Amino acid sequence: MTFRQSTKLADGRELFYYDEHPDVDRSAVDHRDLPATATSSQIRWDPLFREWAIVAGHRQARTYRPPTSDCPLDPSHDGRLTEIPAGDYDVVVFENRFPSLTTQASDDLALDAFPFRSAPGIGRCEVVCFTSDHDTSFAQLAPSRARTVIDALADRTTELSRIEGVEYVFCFENRGEEIGVTLTHPHGQIYAYPFVPSRTERAADSARAYHDDTGHCLQCAIVAAERQAGTRVVVESRLWTAHVPFSARWPYEVRIVPHRHVPDLPSLTDEERDDLAGIYLDVLQRFDHLFSDGPAPYISGWQQAPVHRDRDVWHLAAEVFTIRRAPGKLKYLAGSESGAGVWINDVTPEVAAARLRGE
Amino acid sequence: MTFRQSTKLADGRELFYYDEHPDVDRSAVDHRDLPATATSSQIRWDPLFREWAIVAGHRQARTYRPPTSDCPLDPSHDGRLTEIPAGDYDVVVFENRFPSLTTQASDDLALDAFPFRSAPGIGRCEVVCFTSDHDTSFAQLAPSRARTVIDALADRTTELSRIEGVEYVFCFENRGEEIGVTLTHPHGQIYAYPFVPSRTERAADSARAYHDDTGHCLQCAIVAAERQAGTRVVVESRLWTAHVPFSARWPYEVRIVPHRHVPDLPSLTDEERDDLAGIYLDVLQRFDHLFSDGPAPYISGWQQAPVHRDRDVWHLAAEVFTIRRAPGKLKYLAGSESGAGVWINDVTPEVAAARLRGE
Repeated sequence: MTFRQSTKLADGRELFYYDEHPDVDRSAVDHRDLPATATSSQIRWDPLFREWAIVAGHRQARTYRPPTSDCPLDPSHDGRLTEIPAGDYDVVVFENRFPSLTTQASDDLALDAFPFRSAPGIGRCEVVCFTSDHDTSFAQLAPSRARTVIDALADRTTELSRIEGVEYVFCFENRGEEIGVTLTHPHGQIYAYPFVPSRTERAADSARAYHDDTGHCLQCAIVAAERQAGTRVVVESRLWTAHVPFSARWPYEVRIVPHRHVPDLPSLTDEERDDLAGIYLDVLQRFDHLFSDGPAPYISGWQQAPVHRDRDVWHLAAEVFTIRRAPGKLKYLAGSESGAGVWINDVTPEVAAARLRGE
Repeated sequence: MTFRQSTKLADGRELFYYDEHPDVDRSAVDHRDLPATATSSQIRWDPLFREWAIVAGHRQARTYRPPTSDCPLDPSHDGRLTEIPAGDYDVVVFENRFPSLTTQASDDLALDAFPFRSAPGIGRCEVVCFTSDHDTSFAQLAPSRARTVIDALADRTTELSRIEGVEYVFCFENRGEEIGVTLTHPHGQIYAYPFVPSRTERAADSARAYHDDTGHCLQCAIVAAERQAGTRVVVESRLWTAHVPFSARWPYEVRIVPHRHVPDLPSLTDEERDDLAGIYLDVLQRFDHLFSDGPAPYISGWQQAPVHRDRDVWHLAAEVFTIRRAPGKLKYLAGSESGAGVWINDVTPEVAAARLRGE
């Protein structure tokens, strides 16, 4: 069981404690003298490439690699006041102090004068602290803690989906300096976007078209085919399969997919969540042991159904990938990837899967 | 005038000299003992996200940051044999020794068993050396040399478009260690893809839809609106405008667009090419001077029309952008960008344009 309590930080932001035990005292008050931050976030439409970009000019001043002694994600103790008022915690979620999207975004930023079209950056950006221990990582969490994180992400997905204007909830973790992580304390993030990302929209369109044609789910068909082929399967649990995609874009990329057709994290049963905690930790540990020069930097993200469309045909998946292609060598997104949008993968997916299996 | 001569390297690859003067002796022979490289490139289709990825497992062993004394893009001299047999050159284009795409890609790699679909990685990857001087940069070239590079890119676009199976020709330059550049000698690249990149396809669809609706060109409308607004214009020449896009994804991003509706580089007149040489150098120099900690790393790419479709509605543009957002700070493509495909820009486009104008 996961037990939730909430409070507000000194500048009015919401914070949620997700505890593994009931009745923990979470009444600690944020005593910092914290001015409200100004945000000027907006979304702008690109009529040529058909996608929204978020413009958040106020974020340039955000916290950038503070020394460990100043970590804002540690619990507050010994007179040092952080973002988390409590002296200890299991899992904590709170609103980002420097958000790219906010429910307070100003309406002044709306414009619709072809070819220029913009709207306020309505939404939420939340930080998810996985543990009060500054010096560990997700891969080293106990399965029970991984389960608490999953419960927290599911709960936040449900709540954020209710905000007017929110069209997509994306839960993710950036891990490693090479990904640009500015705070090393183990944490993830949740973005609630005011639009369905164009990449997600394409996948929803694919799922819809396949369902119209066949009456079945595309992701179900892909997972079934991967399990039958076997060559790209990394590990299976009773209710989930982790496999490298046939057309992987990243050197080491794994999709973790539930066998049951479910749209999002809140739809998972207790059993599926427990099973997920195990296989997810297993996959992260494989990334940790891939290279001789230390744990691989990675990005992990949850591909959930959009909030208001195509929920019936969408099939949940987590995507974990690293940009390290060999010890000391990164996969850079250069001309082909960032300019033309064409990914070149130097590691054959079958080779990647074999290495992740430990062969 | 640009004068072309061609030769073959020791392993059979083609090389083209683009000279600024006629009758230069380009008969030098490649005397290296160079084994033919094996390539196993294929393209794989992602049925969910609807895009091709290139899988080039043989490329892991490619040259990685050789010491300056071993630069393979220097001319051959004093007994040191490089990729360029001549002792000096103006502009040289040759086939990449470690290509991601090749006309020799094996048919064995074709597969069409839903959901798995792949095809041989037919195409070409070429290297474009801008100057024999190892220690300079594109921004420092003379306008006449920039013009020669433009002529070379236009000529290669024409030739590569004739290769059976090639659907898109992308000319680009990666500059700077932060972009992952492995050879510091000033050079660009050309990729001839066997498909239209999905991002390009979206832009072609937009252009087609706008043309169907209005009878006009979308890019013409955008440039006209940007010139009228003025706030995002960086610099104008007689025949070209350089502006930051309204919905820029990168901290500093500039589109250089010809005023005339032309589909690609080969279609440019002599006058347009001369004018482009000037404004292109001007824009690169602005990127060089943006930050106190040295020239900005950048990616520059040419958005040309697809080879076989939508050529009538496509409008040529160059896109130049940097991933540096402030001195010492990079824009990383983390969870939102690489996971969800949503770009967050911390620099407001109008602010970026003002800074690029020198205000």
